Amino acid sequence: MTSGQARSKRLGVLLFPGFELLDVFGPLEMFANLGDLIKVHMVAGSAGPVASHQGPEVLADVGLADCPPLELILVPGGFGTHTAVDDQVLIDWLADMAGKAETVMTVCTGTMLLARTGLLDGRRATTNKAWFGLVASTRPEVEWVKVARWIEDGKFVTSSGVSAGIDMALAVISRIAGGEVAEALALATEYEWHRDPSWDPFAARHGLSGN
Amino acid sequence: MTSGQARSKRLGVLLFPGFELLDVFGPLEMFANLGDLIKVHMVAGSAGPVASHQGPEVLADVGLADCPPLELILVPGGFGTHTAVDDQVLIDWLADMAGKAETVMTVCTGTMLLARTGLLDGRRATTNKAWFGLVASTRPEVEWVKVARWIEDGKFVTSSGVSAGIDMALAVISRIAGGEVAEALALATEYEWHRDPSWDPFAARHGLSGN
Repeated sequence: MTSGQARSKRLGVLLFPGFELLDVFGPLEMFANLGDLIKVHMVAGSAGPVASHQGPEVLADVGLADCPPLELILVPGGFGTHTAVDDQVLIDWLADMAGKAETVMTVCTGTMLLARTGLLDGRRATTNKAWFGLVASTRPEVEWVKVARWIEDGKFVTSSGVSAGIDMALAVISRIAGGEVAEALALATEYEWHRDPSWDPFAARHGLSGN
Repeated sequence: MTSGQARSKRLGVLLFPGFELLDVFGPLEMFANLGDLIKVHMVAGSAGPVASHQGPEVLADVGLADCPPLELILVPGGFGTHTAVDDQVLIDWLADMAGKAETVMTVCTGTMLLARTGLLDGRRATTNKAWFGLVASTRPEVEWVKVARWIEDGKFVTSSGVSAGIDMALAVISRIAGGEVAEALALATEYEWHRDPSWDPFAARHGLSGN
């Protein structure tokens, strides 16, 4: 269908050893069920298996060097981010691709990787609440927001820990495909969607309050 | 650690072409973060890549014929179940392994696969609410429950569509590892856990009511 193809957007999901499973597959459940609207690429250092922090391995279909232009980027978190943040090839790729993309999303400690590129400097952003102080300390130039399910600042959409990525994905899908499509996805997956980006009962439970 | 090893349980996650991503990785996010308590096997017809309904491929580390005994089994749903339900090798494997396991979990239309084995006959079970009538019609011997997030009947724990698997997983983890461990997992993943198995706002939205 030509009209469908014309509107299709490429979503690149960045994988690295030690990524968190639900950070990837929560948002992807929603985006990949958009059908022709989205073409998903699983991107890693090189094509092939990438082990999650939890063990199970996922196949990257394209390496960083061969990745086509991306309209959408999803950066997951996980314990692997603590190594990935010092992987200059990965950070340089992200700086380049995120600079050109329409929308760049992060989940959990994935925000630390995007912050390292400098693209979030002077912008509002959030991250996992259990690791908030540690992540924030890696890039003080970012205006870190403690209490938020997700934060949109321009084309950058950063979310809190793990399951927050699902709510963020539905919010971005509302913008791209319309609220009714997002609503239908939430119903089909029997997911109780948190539509309010300021809903965050977890911040206080991790001792965070304020901005 | 000998004591840890002694308590470790094997969880087998059944993969087949066209499985639903979040049916697998929602529950697995919780189980695989239990560390030494759980040893995860991704099981498919044969070891190697298995394509999800959404496209991304996951590696099975063991084939059905080589799978070790499993204390726990997770059967996801997805459009692939409509083919898998007629895969006699897969159904025979499931009948054998589920018969011997301590706990057998299904998500979404994955319940259709377990129902086909006959192990749910005369038992209460639930499934995806959008496909409820179709799934129920494939095995009238099961006592299908329309309004339920998940249903426990003996060692069989069946859940509603897609995201319901996460709540079911936390309930099973409460039983295996204690409520505090499940609570800590929900907090770490910033997941608003629905603890009440009768919570099901989606049934009515799919025109289901009653039992």
